[in-house]
Amino acid sequence: MGEEVKLFAVWGSPFSRRVEMALKLKGVEYEYIEVDLQNKSDLLLKYNPVHKKIPVLVHNGKPIAESVVILEYIDETWKGFPLLPKDPYQRAMARFWAKFIEEKCMPALFKCAGTEDREKAVEEACELLKLLENELEDKKFFGGENIGFVDIVADFIGGYWLRDIQEIVGVKILTRENLPKLCEWSDEFVNHVVIKENLPPRDKLIAYFRTRFGPKP
Amino acid sequence: MGEEVKLFAVWGSPFSRRVEMALKLKGVEYEYIEVDLQNKSDLLLKYNPVHKKIPVLVHNGKPIAESVVILEYIDETWKGFPLLPKDPYQRAMARFWAKFIEEKCMPALFKCAGTEDREKAVEEACELLKLLENELEDKKFFGGENIGFVDIVADFIGGYWLRDIQEIVGVKILTRENLPKLCEWSDEFVNHVVIKENLPPRDKLIAYFRTRFGPKP
Repeated sequence: MGEEVKLFAVWGSPFSRRVEMALKLKGVEYEYIEVDLQNKSDLLLKYNPVHKKIPVLVHNGKPIAESVVILEYIDETWKGFPLLPKDPYQRAMARFWAKFIEEKCMPALFKCAGTEDREKAVEEACELLKLLENELEDKKFFGGENIGFVDIVADFIGGYWLRDIQEIVGVKILTRENLPKLCEWSDEFVNHVVIKENLPPRDKLIAYFRTRFGPKP
Repeated sequence: MGEEVKLFAVWGSPFSRRVEMALKLKGVEYEYIEVDLQNKSDLLLKYNPVHKKIPVLVHNGKPIAESVVILEYIDETWKGFPLLPKDPYQRAMARFWAKFIEEKCMPALFKCAGTEDREKAVEEACELLKLLENELEDKKFFGGENIGFVDIVADFIGGYWLRDIQEIVGVKILTRENLPKLCEWSDEFVNHVVIKENLPPRDKLIAYFRTRFGPKP
């Protein structure tokens, strides 16, 4: 095919990992380029001049930014393992929940690691995740039996990011008491054969979280 | 077909109008239901329990919320006039710019109508719209010769909403000096045969903006 797929990413970023998970699920080979966010390369600025952020996928020289946009591109470009369902209504539901995670849950969860009014932030995040828990019902993954678009977009919640950060910060969000179904889903997620090979090294991530969110000396 | 298409909407909302424009471009007939936002009906709360907002499209009894999600659904469900381009890379670019308008431009523009640090808000909004102007280049519409996804998502900017609000508030954002190409695009937009029939009545909108954003007695 002579195809060239490059991914500009950061090892611990849940946004970067979304793209890696999708590529791995599709079986697409790619060159991984770790970006130094403290010292952004000219190439990153050229490829994502609007947001200057990772991840950026470059396919045969053409760059795409924004992880959710990249996921749709991957699903349309490489057949095989489908990320979105086939049925237009089911696709709309997947996009609705992905947008909800992206625009509501993620900012609410990031707030919980801040120091301003943490209690209220935790309460709000729990309320949002409860809506996600209701949507999950008794399904194994958000789309049913197979992992897909919504699960990948929710990697921060399903992977160890949230569970480890909440422990270091000392708050309770994703717990078996609060959100039993979401916890079960999270267990399925981290044990999925492709996902478990594509989560950031946990020790390294915890060490990073400790310096960032842990108690200051 | 025995198809039933209902739209729960608000006459002056650019988000509602996005959906109406898409349905009209596709030639889909629908029942329009005006929602009273001060007194939300049980039906709206049932159809959009997460956000409790308009627009909601109900197709054969199945509800879809979030205007951008609805646009994708419309494009996948009714063939004929295409909203998104065919090519996966061009689709990704359209989704990228739609997301940029939705998540960056719209909040920045809404801030300009506020009273807090209006000068800075206007400056930031102009910078974002400049990126949009660059993307437009010398194209008639964002996708080229034909109106499409990005134009519709940008209806607040292209339609009279922004131009009339900026006049009432007394700020300069979308002007021929600041953003000449975007102004030309806006002229094309409001004069498009389908769009011009589907913009809110301008007098009524201006009267509403005056009570909301105009000088207080």
